Amino acid sequence: MLNETHDPSLISWVESANQENTDFPIQNLPFAIFRRAGSNENFRGGVAIGDEVLDLSAVKASGIFSGLAQDALQACDANELNAFMDMGKEAWSALRLSLSRALRTGSESQAKLSTCLINQDDVEYSLPCHIGDYTDFYTSIYHATAVGKLFRPDNPLLPNYKWVPIGYHGRSSSIDVSGQTFKRPKGQLKAPDATEPGLAPCKRLDYEMEVGIYIGKGNELGEAISLDNAEDHVFGMCLFNDWSARDIQAWEYQPLGPFLAKNFASTVSPWIVTTEALAPFRTNWTRDEADPQPLPYLDSAHNRDKGGFDVQLEVQLETPKMKEAGEPASHLSLSNFRHSYWTVAQMVAHHSVNGCNLRPGDMFGSGTQSGPEHEEAGSLLELSRGGKESITLDNGETRTFLEDGDTIIMRGWCQKEGAKRIGFGEVASTVIPAE
Amino acid sequence: MLNETHDPSLISWVESANQENTDFPIQNLPFAIFRRAGSNENFRGGVAIGDEVLDLSAVKASGIFSGLAQDALQACDANELNAFMDMGKEAWSALRLSLSRALRTGSESQAKLSTCLINQDDVEYSLPCHIGDYTDFYTSIYHATAVGKLFRPDNPLLPNYKWVPIGYHGRSSSIDVSGQTFKRPKGQLKAPDATEPGLAPCKRLDYEMEVGIYIGKGNELGEAISLDNAEDHVFGMCLFNDWSARDIQAWEYQPLGPFLAKNFASTVSPWIVTTEALAPFRTNWTRDEADPQPLPYLDSAHNRDKGGFDVQLEVQLETPKMKEAGEPASHLSLSNFRHSYWTVAQMVAHHSVNGCNLRPGDMFGSGTQSGPEHEEAGSLLELSRGGKESITLDNGETRTFLEDGDTIIMRGWCQKEGAKRIGFGEVASTVIPAE
Repeated sequence: MLNETHDPSLISWVESANQENTDFPIQNLPFAIFRRAGSNENFRGGVAIGDEVLDLSAVKASGIFSGLAQDALQACDANELNAFMDMGKEAWSALRLSLSRALRTGSESQAKLSTCLINQDDVEYSLPCHIGDYTDFYTSIYHATAVGKLFRPDNPLLPNYKWVPIGYHGRSSSIDVSGQTFKRPKGQLKAPDATEPGLAPCKRLDYEMEVGIYIGKGNELGEAISLDNAEDHVFGMCLFNDWSARDIQAWEYQPLGPFLAKNFASTVSPWIVTTEALAPFRTNWTRDEADPQPLPYLDSAHNRDKGGFDVQLEVQLETPKMKEAGEPASHLSLSNFRHSYWTVAQMVAHHSVNGCNLRPGDMFGSGTQSGPEHEEAGSLLELSRGGKESITLDNGETRTFLEDGDTIIMRGWCQKEGAKRIGFGEVASTVIPAE
Repeated sequence: MLNETHDPSLISWVESANQENTDFPIQNLPFAIFRRAGSNENFRGGVAIGDEVLDLSAVKASGIFSGLAQDALQACDANELNAFMDMGKEAWSALRLSLSRALRTGSESQAKLSTCLINQDDVEYSLPCHIGDYTDFYTSIYHATAVGKLFRPDNPLLPNYKWVPIGYHGRSSSIDVSGQTFKRPKGQLKAPDATEPGLAPCKRLDYEMEVGIYIGKGNELGEAISLDNAEDHVFGMCLFNDWSARDIQAWEYQPLGPFLAKNFASTVSPWIVTTEALAPFRTNWTRDEADPQPLPYLDSAHNRDKGGFDVQLEVQLETPKMKEAGEPASHLSLSNFRHSYWTVAQMVAHHSVNGCNLRPGDMFGSGTQSGPEHEEAGSLLELSRGGKESITLDNGETRTFLEDGDTIIMRGWCQKEGAKRIGFGEVASTVIPAE
């Protein structure tokens, strides 16, 4: 639902928030956990505005807000946002509205709030919350089909795909924030023609371009969340790189799913764009008439009308040579979250239909968000057609899978006529050599 | 390694600890988190001795210990044992030794410690620690083969099984302690001859008899744990019922593994028996010569010599009729953890070989611990041969899968000549009707 905070004509007294291509205009107001880079300060909640971070601990201390918005600031004055997420959407909205009004041109609070700003170049981030459980979905039918084709050319899509929002449990301990570096994982590899596996560094290291979805308010064990209540439980979204070791995966994943191929590292962007900020970019959600229509617990008028999110998703690769030469990163793909075969609300309703309890700060990965065209693929496995075709980068280098020192950068943004463009910032992370 | 705490001739001044068949003689000393039942007391660490719980908060306050043992008590004076687990085995051993000496007949501490005892009938338990991540392994080759036969009669065991300690990520939010009741889960079910799935309460509800393994000290992301260091990271073990909805599982699990079939509930026993307490019950670990021998990172002389644990595992079923009639629960199966195809140390080394970080309090499930004989099967799926043969209980009732009101009780113990018998207590939990 649109409200005054979405008004595209709003202008902030923070000048950088009014620039044409900023990710963080006053209509966005995403949340992160930050502190001054290299300091021993406590990590605490912050909101992005233009090139700045608004320090919510300082805003709280300034005393300019009251009531529910001030209570929300109190919850944000912590090294993780879980308590704020647990407050629910009334509190999230109250704080957003107060921040929007206080950051507008002409606000009486400008003098006090201007002392609460720190330039984004001068801060470092931590994970925005404690992620208790992380679930990875598989919602791009284009990704599922392309990957399925590599393994089962005649039967790429399994019979349950169009009925079940397929997902599996991931590991939360190895999720870190943008800037993460990790060693190339070792694991058991077995070449198709080898008789035995061996332990070696992964040779087919890949990224997966996903949207991360943060649960806000949770549910009690045994209490399913209905589809139409599902979005009340969704605090917001981020960019998510679900690093994958394809050769480890191929050998280990039967019959219980991916394990060591995934849990060596996963990286989130620092900023959580709230569900409320995304309201102008909701899209309808439809099914081909030839496809099975969803079971009743996964179907509602609201979900068909507004279930989707129109978020552009771009992947770039920066090689060691590009870094040395000061060349820009090379574009790999551009896709959109609107292609998802299942909506965020359907993921929530499905995950809890058996009574499973979700907790504030739990995260869902959307699954690799490949679009319908080959150049919209969200992984190298797809772009290189299973490693068979090498990809030529802007500087003439080639890749099938990632090499040591490569950095993957993902960006996301929403843009359409009649709304102010908002962005997700970026998630960048780098693989370093195996031990 | 055996030390004075394992001496089978030790006797406690807590009389109930000296009874023949107690689970908790002075040689055991397992840990839990407890408080007086129905009270508003803080949950805190306790150690079982005979029929009593030794209140570690009260022991700390008594001031009878000093040094590392007192530091360990400080860490146990909390509503979860994670800080104590993080201290490492030197601290675990120091506290065990101090407790063993103070609880022996003739101890000078008897007068002070006797005021720190609360009868187990008068307490309630919570989870013993915050379980950050839970991983479920699949280490019984008998279970893997029996389940595989139901799906793939000609090819029951997949080619990776004898090379890879197969595991997958589980969900920690729905793990609770013995006494848990949960609603029969709903989910998408599709009969083999049906053209479409539907949402309905699970009809093939099952238990899985597992050993739960708690990580003590963790490792940094990127730092593998070697096989010979692995047990330094294992705090102890419990009984674990990994509830499973077989019909939900059959429809959802391809290609990414079990999800809603598992995450509606999982139940642990309250007591953690430490790895040190289990030292007298270590067994060798061998492979058939015809089987592939483990890769070097999963092989060591110590692991072959002492890698196994001889723990008897019993499952009983108590139906509503038995409860009404005051009849005892009916025996379902008896197995042993020594049958595991992979050792605990191999699970730790494998889980971290790719650099994945384990954290204090993380839990591994061993996977269903079925033994070589049919009557040693650790699930109804196996006992009923896929639901085809019903099981007759002691009172004449029959079951293929579980009915509403059924309680599953699991017990575990170690017993052999020349050592004092120690037990794990029990895990009991009950399914109630779907909403």
